[in-house]
Amino acid sequence: MTDATLQDQGQVLALSLPQGVLRFHAVWLRHNALDPSNRDQNNGQRLTTLADLPDTCKLATAEASDTTVSMTFTDGKSTAFPVEWLAANAYDRVLKTDKGHLPEHAETWDASLMERVPTGHLPDLQSSNRAKRDWLAAIRRYGFAKVSGMPPKPGALFDIVALFGFVRETNYGRHFEVRTEVNPTNLAFTGLGLQAHTDNPYRDPVPTLQVLACLENSAEGGDNMVVDGFAAVQRLRQDNPDGFALLHSHSARFEYAGEAGVKLTSRRPVIELTPEGTLNSIRFNARSAAPPLDVPFDKMTDYYTALRQLSDIIDDPASEVRFKLVPGEAFIVDNTRVLHARKGYSGAGNRWLQGCYADKDGLLSTLAALEIEP
Amino acid sequence: MTDATLQDQGQVLALSLPQGVLRFHAVWLRHNALDPSNRDQNNGQRLTTLADLPDTCKLATAEASDTTVSMTFTDGKSTAFPVEWLAANAYDRVLKTDKGHLPEHAETWDASLMERVPTGHLPDLQSSNRAKRDWLAAIRRYGFAKVSGMPPKPGALFDIVALFGFVRETNYGRHFEVRTEVNPTNLAFTGLGLQAHTDNPYRDPVPTLQVLACLENSAEGGDNMVVDGFAAVQRLRQDNPDGFALLHSHSARFEYAGEAGVKLTSRRPVIELTPEGTLNSIRFNARSAAPPLDVPFDKMTDYYTALRQLSDIIDDPASEVRFKLVPGEAFIVDNTRVLHARKGYSGAGNRWLQGCYADKDGLLSTLAALEIEP
Repeated sequence: MTDATLQDQGQVLALSLPQGVLRFHAVWLRHNALDPSNRDQNNGQRLTTLADLPDTCKLATAEASDTTVSMTFTDGKSTAFPVEWLAANAYDRVLKTDKGHLPEHAETWDASLMERVPTGHLPDLQSSNRAKRDWLAAIRRYGFAKVSGMPPKPGALFDIVALFGFVRETNYGRHFEVRTEVNPTNLAFTGLGLQAHTDNPYRDPVPTLQVLACLENSAEGGDNMVVDGFAAVQRLRQDNPDGFALLHSHSARFEYAGEAGVKLTSRRPVIELTPEGTLNSIRFNARSAAPPLDVPFDKMTDYYTALRQLSDIIDDPASEVRFKLVPGEAFIVDNTRVLHARKGYSGAGNRWLQGCYADKDGLLSTLAALEIEP
Repeated sequence: MTDATLQDQGQVLALSLPQGVLRFHAVWLRHNALDPSNRDQNNGQRLTTLADLPDTCKLATAEASDTTVSMTFTDGKSTAFPVEWLAANAYDRVLKTDKGHLPEHAETWDASLMERVPTGHLPDLQSSNRAKRDWLAAIRRYGFAKVSGMPPKPGALFDIVALFGFVRETNYGRHFEVRTEVNPTNLAFTGLGLQAHTDNPYRDPVPTLQVLACLENSAEGGDNMVVDGFAAVQRLRQDNPDGFALLHSHSARFEYAGEAGVKLTSRRPVIELTPEGTLNSIRFNARSAAPPLDVPFDKMTDYYTALRQLSDIIDDPASEVRFKLVPGEAFIVDNTRVLHARKGYSGAGNRWLQGCYADKDGLLSTLAALEIEP
């Protein structure tokens, strides 16, 4: 049975629900009121500013039914909230604050994910909201998924991005060709093996998604690998907590200046946490790591020890999911979390991939909307 | 006179320069070596990974001339650095760690900037690298600049973005029309006044630049204002240090779900700092601020007090630069720093702006490249 009482001279509403008592501050309720005087009922946007809040926000009355809590503030304004909405937005709870915990919906993985790589068949993803929702949810969960059934032709990778969002164009173009070049502006455009890395850490904001699509792959080698960066840094946290702390407490530097007119630099930590300690992103790229300048002199040796440990974890075959794309296959990675690599290739045959960047905002938005109205 | 000595059993190189002694760790020197075994001499990318570093990195010899420091590691590898490069990349220094200090190149401002608004004339920006460099440098410094001399026709705003980078496409399109709509998906598309805000804080990554270009502006009102968010939060830090700390230590939430198929949410602090305490970005938007859920219950009242203080500072006319765009004028803001606002408008006449988003990586890269080779 739902019951509402006032505490602290009306500054707090205490809501008794079957699952326990949830408290809400009067100022929070006033600011987030759902009624037409505070929210545009069409687009949901707030119509007031913080300056519209009374100097002291107190409740005079509150009354609860099983579905609704109605209340009046001391200045006469009244409003009401669904009980369900209040329960879903309760902040009177124990918050996670340990440094390096996973974000909501994320689940770490290792090489064993190879047996169950989340894969969407492009025609299904295009025709079925349910298939699309499940595929997008896998990307949110694992930071990685494959696509099959793509027409193996130039530009087809844009059909993948069109499922959820928009291409992020950069100095590499709307898309870029991953194949051997004579005077490569980037080592990606050679046959060299590339250690697992996140792309473009020298860019701020970093592109948060990458799609790599296969058009030809008859060369010897050139397998792709992906590694869960969140799993890797959690393993580092376990092996060397102080080293983990060094990598999230000091900014690294990254740089790319391989083309005329381009000098991209960034200053961001290898492991980025939210203020609460939630894992937010990792940046790891051997090719473009610039000299660290923000680590105190006395900590530099330990900083490098931690970096090397993280590099070893990332290189551990037990961390990696490995596959060789065939023409018409593609994969997508959350570039703030999952590192990708490739084996070197050479000899007869051709390897031609196309890549592009996109952003997670559209992906997570499309998924959230599908979860409400599938 | 330059002199190089080894310390700590060869783990440290001490370089005596006229300006003092700078120390470098052997592991740092090895990792950042500039020679062809470590760096592609064409595109500058590193050819090795952290696993290629010896287990213990020590120097056996070091020798300095006025321009070059040559060294040999105990495993026999030798390399050399220009003295100038080492001095420019020295990390043996006192680092800024106070919370809320300005990033390099930034300078705060208030309403007095109105007398000297940095403005580029589009034809000049297109024809003169020097004019472009100065205009880009002003954006890096103030987070804001105007443009004049733009053809007052649809799509002309893309010419501004083309000066330095690429449009960030979103669910609002490659560009969006800012004029009164009958059923607006966003209150921006009405005649309502809008409190100073950063755009799209519900997006992660947020678009880091916004361009607003004027095609018609004969309506009464509709003036634009811009406010330096970094100056505002530094003022909050002075007035209420604990409140400033609350706003950077706890994530806020933002949401936009004004269109079918769109449900954008983010969880980021109002004031975002780097691990060192450098101001990185601010997110402030009355319309799309969702209920805060990551502030501990016992701190929520103080959190709201701090938010309201910040809102008052932002609303203070002493903070704002105000102007009315005429057709053919535009302005650009660093959307991670500078808030923009508009007065309400109505009555006879028309107000038609076009807006688009872009990103700072390209802008700062173009500027850095121009600063090297103007």
